[in-house]
Amino acid sequence: MNDYQIEMNLSQSRKQKPAFDNLQFGRNFTDHMFIMDYTEGKGWHDPRIVPYQPITLDPSATIFHYGQTVFEGLKAYQTKDEQILLFRPNKNMERLNRSSARLCMPQIDEELALYGLKQLINVERDWVPNLEGTSLYIRPFIISTEAHLGVSPSLTYQFIIILCPVGAYYKEGINPVKIAVETEYVRAVRGGTGNAKTAGNYASSLKAQEVAGKSGYSQVLWLDGKENKYIEEVGSMNVFFKIDGEVITPELNGSILDGITRDSIILLLKHWNIPVKERKISIEEIYQASKEGKLEEAFGTGTAAVISPIGELFWKEKLLVNNGETGSLSKKLYETLTGIQNGSLVDPFGWRVLV
Amino acid sequence: MNDYQIEMNLSQSRKQKPAFDNLQFGRNFTDHMFIMDYTEGKGWHDPRIVPYQPITLDPSATIFHYGQTVFEGLKAYQTKDEQILLFRPNKNMERLNRSSARLCMPQIDEELALYGLKQLINVERDWVPNLEGTSLYIRPFIISTEAHLGVSPSLTYQFIIILCPVGAYYKEGINPVKIAVETEYVRAVRGGTGNAKTAGNYASSLKAQEVAGKSGYSQVLWLDGKENKYIEEVGSMNVFFKIDGEVITPELNGSILDGITRDSIILLLKHWNIPVKERKISIEEIYQASKEGKLEEAFGTGTAAVISPIGELFWKEKLLVNNGETGSLSKKLYETLTGIQNGSLVDPFGWRVLV
Ligand SMILES: Cc1ncc(COP(=O)(O)O)c(C=O)c1O
Ligand SMILES: Cc1ncc(COP(=O)(O)O)c(C=O)c1O
Repeated sequence: MNDYQIEMNLSQSRKQKPAFDNLQFGRNFTDHMFIMDYTEGKGWHDPRIVPYQPITLDPSATIFHYGQTVFEGLKAYQTKDEQILLFRPNKNMERLNRSSARLCMPQIDEELALYGLKQLINVERDWVPNLEGTSLYIRPFIISTEAHLGVSPSLTYQFIIILCPVGAYYKEGINPVKIAVETEYVRAVRGGTGNAKTAGNYASSLKAQEVAGKSGYSQVLWLDGKENKYIEEVGSMNVFFKIDGEVITPELNGSILDGITRDSIILLLKHWNIPVKERKISIEEIYQASKEGKLEEAFGTGTAAVISPIGELFWKEKLLVNNGETGSLSKKLYETLTGIQNGSLVDPFGWRVLV
Repeated sequence: MNDYQIEMNLSQSRKQKPAFDNLQFGRNFTDHMFIMDYTEGKGWHDPRIVPYQPITLDPSATIFHYGQTVFEGLKAYQTKDEQILLFRPNKNMERLNRSSARLCMPQIDEELALYGLKQLINVERDWVPNLEGTSLYIRPFIISTEAHLGVSPSLTYQFIIILCPVGAYYKEGINPVKIAVETEYVRAVRGGTGNAKTAGNYASSLKAQEVAGKSGYSQVLWLDGKENKYIEEVGSMNVFFKIDGEVITPELNGSILDGITRDSIILLLKHWNIPVKERKISIEEIYQASKEGKLEEAFGTGTAAVISPIGELFWKEKLLVNNGETGSLSKKLYETLTGIQNGSLVDPFGWRVLV
């Protein structure tokens, strides 16, 4: 690992840090960033840590027109004894490479990226908040930078990592959300880019979110693009349902993102001997289960919120899940996962990586 | 029209112009660009013409992560008597606004945008090439610029127009292309963003193009995302088939881009009393028509190539269209449309706009 040469160009001045007890998500960035360039024929080169600074691109840069870009999202946590922990960061680097392959973008050296990330966090140790529920959000991303109007893969790219301290997702305890089942707009379809973490998927999801928001729903539940019938994701999270003692999540079918929280929850449930299945599940089945009194819990999963319980669904008619309250499994999963992440619980899976 | 105030900040120096008889598409940009800013609550402001210059954005700018961006593509032509003509530019500004609406981006004043474009071209008159088949390619685009990691519409945007002289698309006469029918990857689906001109659609199309390219095909024919059966577009063009004397193009179903060349061709065909239908058409039907000897011509349509004849298709098996040669209708449409565009033919439809 230590063979990597990363140039260090540290900032002469330091920003004033925001109050760690009142952090807004994605607004305050640290003093430095990690950058590495790609040039066709030469590969990735010049990995470096530099002062946080604007990106300067030609107006014809392909990112602005043809959208070749992928990203990741993960967090670093400060333990009680001031250690800094990452949660399965190798999974993020692997997924970044899978996303890049779909978008015809070059692969990165995952070890180098992880090494660079650790070096960057080391420089920014003071930025990792230490209050309950807070963390340092990490955003690695790759953009295509060639100055060329043409629908073909860019010949140059930049890989960048930026960091921002973020607050507890649930300020007053974990809170169930109201979700509208989306029947008009589609997030992704088999053969599309749904299983890649790429900008276009998020841009296209805004409209449905806006419409749902106007009716008082905080997010949408996406159905498949082909039959408009099977459940895919909720907002930008994976989704789980507990029906009659069994936990069910949509199988990875190519249009669903392979969530790292999703994977961790499946492993945790198996560890606890709670039955869990990855399979196709229709929205009809959820409503049927509810009618039969068998729908026990529903929740979204993702890095930002970890677990987001679903209290209400709307599809043709309203459906209350667990009386609109957070279920016991959701709660247990939330506490266990966050506990493993922030170092307060043991880590039977070897998921933590020390910075 | 003349009430608009556009600030002019002209460049002190001028670039060396490329040779107009050997222009590469999308590589040489003119001396100036048009910019206008949007701030939530204030609307669009500060329209201005400035020296062509880099765009500087925070690394957290939403364009890099969540891809809110739309664009247009049109051309300006120089006539024999040195007039400069635009082709239906109002259609592009209307479509830009329709694309923006889908992406939750603010609407522009189409008249102001067109006025700004004309002012810009006026400044760059020397950049409009005058050789047969050449033109000035115009790229208006809007990017989201807010420094914020969050899946919600950006609160700030930039609208920019850049220009580049482009050469004749067909250097040695109009040339039929070989097209692979795409059965694995999907460009767009009902409920997605297929009818918006937004970056994500192009990023997601690269992979199929790459695979087809490796087998010697220059583009792919996209089928619908739902049934993988009905024809949608070819590469980034609309597509037409002449079968048994009738011209057929896929109907605008929400996942197909509403091409301005497509619309112009439909109007031209009607003007000529050639039967033309917008309807669903399956790839099966094309192969059947070919077997029965009724498939006469096939061609793609778009601003860049105007008409791109299809000489060969591959879906399960190879299919030669019109013996791999350019059909007479394709040729006539190409000559008529380019003639109207460059001012060498009369314009019965009032499509030209003088700069
Ligand atoms: C579309 C989408 N689905 C699911 C997830 C959850 O993935 P993870 O658990 O790796 O954060 C994310 C991102 O966080 C996402 O953007
Ligand atoms: C996806 C796609 N389809 C069709 C077209 C053709 O549209 P137009 O004729 O307006 O150029 C374009 C763009 O040029 C396109 O990008």
